[in-house]
Amino acid sequence: MNDTPSSDTAPDREAVRARVQDCFDRSGLLCHLGAHLGEVAPGRVHIHLPYGAQLTQHLGFFHAGATSAIADAAGGFAALTRTPIGYTVLTVEFKVNLMAPAQGESLEAVGRVIRAGRTLSVVQVDVYAVQLGEKTPVALMQQTLMSLPEK
Amino acid sequence: MNDTPSSDTAPDREAVRARVQDCFDRSGLLCHLGAHLGEVAPGRVHIHLPYGAQLTQHLGFFHAGATSAIADAAGGFAALTRTPIGYTVLTVEFKVNLMAPAQGESLEAVGRVIRAGRTLSVVQVDVYAVQLGEKTPVALMQQTLMSLPEK
Amino acid sequence: MNDTPSSDTAPDREAVRARVQDCFDRSGLLCHLGAHLGEVAPGRVHIHLPYGAQLTQHLGFFHAGATSAIADAAGGFAALTRTPIGYTVLTVEFKVNLMAPAQGESLEAVGRVIRAGRTLSVVQVDVYAVQLGEKTPVALMQQTLMSLPEK
Amino acid sequence: MNDTPSSDTAPDREAVRARVQDCFDRSGLLCHLGAHLGEVAPGRVHIHLPYGAQLTQHLGFFHAGATSAIADAAGGFAALTRTPIGYTVLTVEFKVNLMAPAQGESLEAVGRVIRAGRTLSVVQVDVYAVQLGEKTPVALMQQTLMSLPEK
Repeated sequence: MNDTPSSDTAPDREAVRARVQDCFDRSGLLCHLGAHLGEVAPGRVHIHLPYGAQLTQHLGFFHAGATSAIADAAGGFAALTRTPIGYTVLTVEFKVNLMAPAQGESLEAVGRVIRAGRTLSVVQVDVYAVQLGEKTPVALMQQTLMSLPEK
Repeated sequence: MNDTPSSDTAPDREAVRARVQDCFDRSGLLCHLGAHLGEVAPGRVHIHLPYGAQLTQHLGFFHAGATSAIADAAGGFAALTRTPIGYTVLTVEFKVNLMAPAQGESLEAVGRVIRAGRTLSVVQVDVYAVQLGEKTPVALMQQTLMSLPEK
Repeated sequence: MNDTPSSDTAPDREAVRARVQDCFDRSGLLCHLGAHLGEVAPGRVHIHLPYGAQLTQHLGFFHAGATSAIADAAGGFAALTRTPIGYTVLTVEFKVNLMAPAQGESLEAVGRVIRAGRTLSVVQVDVYAVQLGEKTPVALMQQTLMSLPEK
Repeated sequence: MNDTPSSDTAPDREAVRARVQDCFDRSGLLCHLGAHLGEVAPGRVHIHLPYGAQLTQHLGFFHAGATSAIADAAGGFAALTRTPIGYTVLTVEFKVNLMAPAQGESLEAVGRVIRAGRTLSVVQVDVYAVQLGEKTPVALMQQTLMSLPEK
């Protein structure tokens, strides 16, 4: 059970993107993995991760840890777009199904806010493998986040 | 519902460790993050991850993606120790609670097999932050894995 | 990671419904709770649960156990519609977020197959509270199921 | 990420049990299923559920919904024992693995608090099938709860 939803102010898209990009740039892990920010809209954020040998598990596919990292980030940023200025979000927990081998030129994670509460938010994230312009769903995440005042 | 449990053969510890280390060394992501293998016993595997700026989220703690990556790996390797030779394991899904800020000199993930089935296994993983020799629980994972014949 | 998808045969809607209704009728719990089957389509199943004092938690809302029971059933039946004749499905695991107080005249759970594999399927379930003809999302489930030959 | 832990006051066992029993008695679903309260200790609660035809799925085992209902309740009551007087707890989300067919004379769910935070708590629940005095693990739950002031 969560609490009452936040009011749905619709801040200017540029400002929303800048806020997410700033948070992205301060996330050492995302840069280290080679991820970059894609589309950003209120309540929805895309992250791309090009394939590389530094991202693999023992069979040469993307490691579940890499898939989960960009899914968690896409979900967190999606929640951030619905969080009042002066607050940040932290992941409380998530669950992810690895539905198919994650292989291709890149992964794309798309986080979408399902419910934005004052304290807790629920987000769904779809992850696709991209190969020759075609997208195949490879993972599905359901995530809970908490908003906290920034120090 | 899973299937009937695997017989609990107790292979020699050295061979078990060699099998896990081989799988670890072929996992590009784990090397890229700077993780290393700790204790290995039948049904239980430890992974260590020293802190570094390349592992952080926007507040400077270990990123949930880094925490999850070593937890997923520790769980997968724990399942591997209970899987017959000639088979490998893949993560079907996992759920992780990030219980406290993951900050310290390093993280330690400890995967333990709860149920080893012929097809599916269930594993629990505890993740601790280590600081000045003291361990604080920071994350808790429950994971489902599938065993498959190696090609 | 799951296995290769099942072929998507499209059996006659009447037969699909009859198969699900038969499975529903043999589920003592669903009858005991007062649930009944709603719409059935290949890959999607609805279950309704009218409110009653026998379904509550300590504050008088629908108990999370009741919400989860019909969500698990709707997801399982959705998977059943995509499973070959002669096979049945069992829940491997699920994760559910209780997003808002489940209060109203009834609940409606809608299970949708996201991926139908030969062995494992992944299903999403939305649960709504219905009050004066209006639906409010109250829960969200992500579920893994296994198909097995019927005895 | 949760918040700072609650202080670990150790109220008298009788009072703790009375508080849980009161909450149990106001839960219509638990009575309707035929469940009853077992052992209660600070941070740990047991619930028993005798087998009956009104609790089954289509193969005659305990329905995942029944298993989950008592697991959710045992976890919630365990969290309640660690929550200050004047507050109640609500389930935010849970994840449960159904590890083996739930068949036997009864089920026993044992909820244990892993982390009691001021706002959020994390609980693990083991469910056993009991047959001729022997206990078999059949389900494993990881649960997040929120504490709220009672009205």
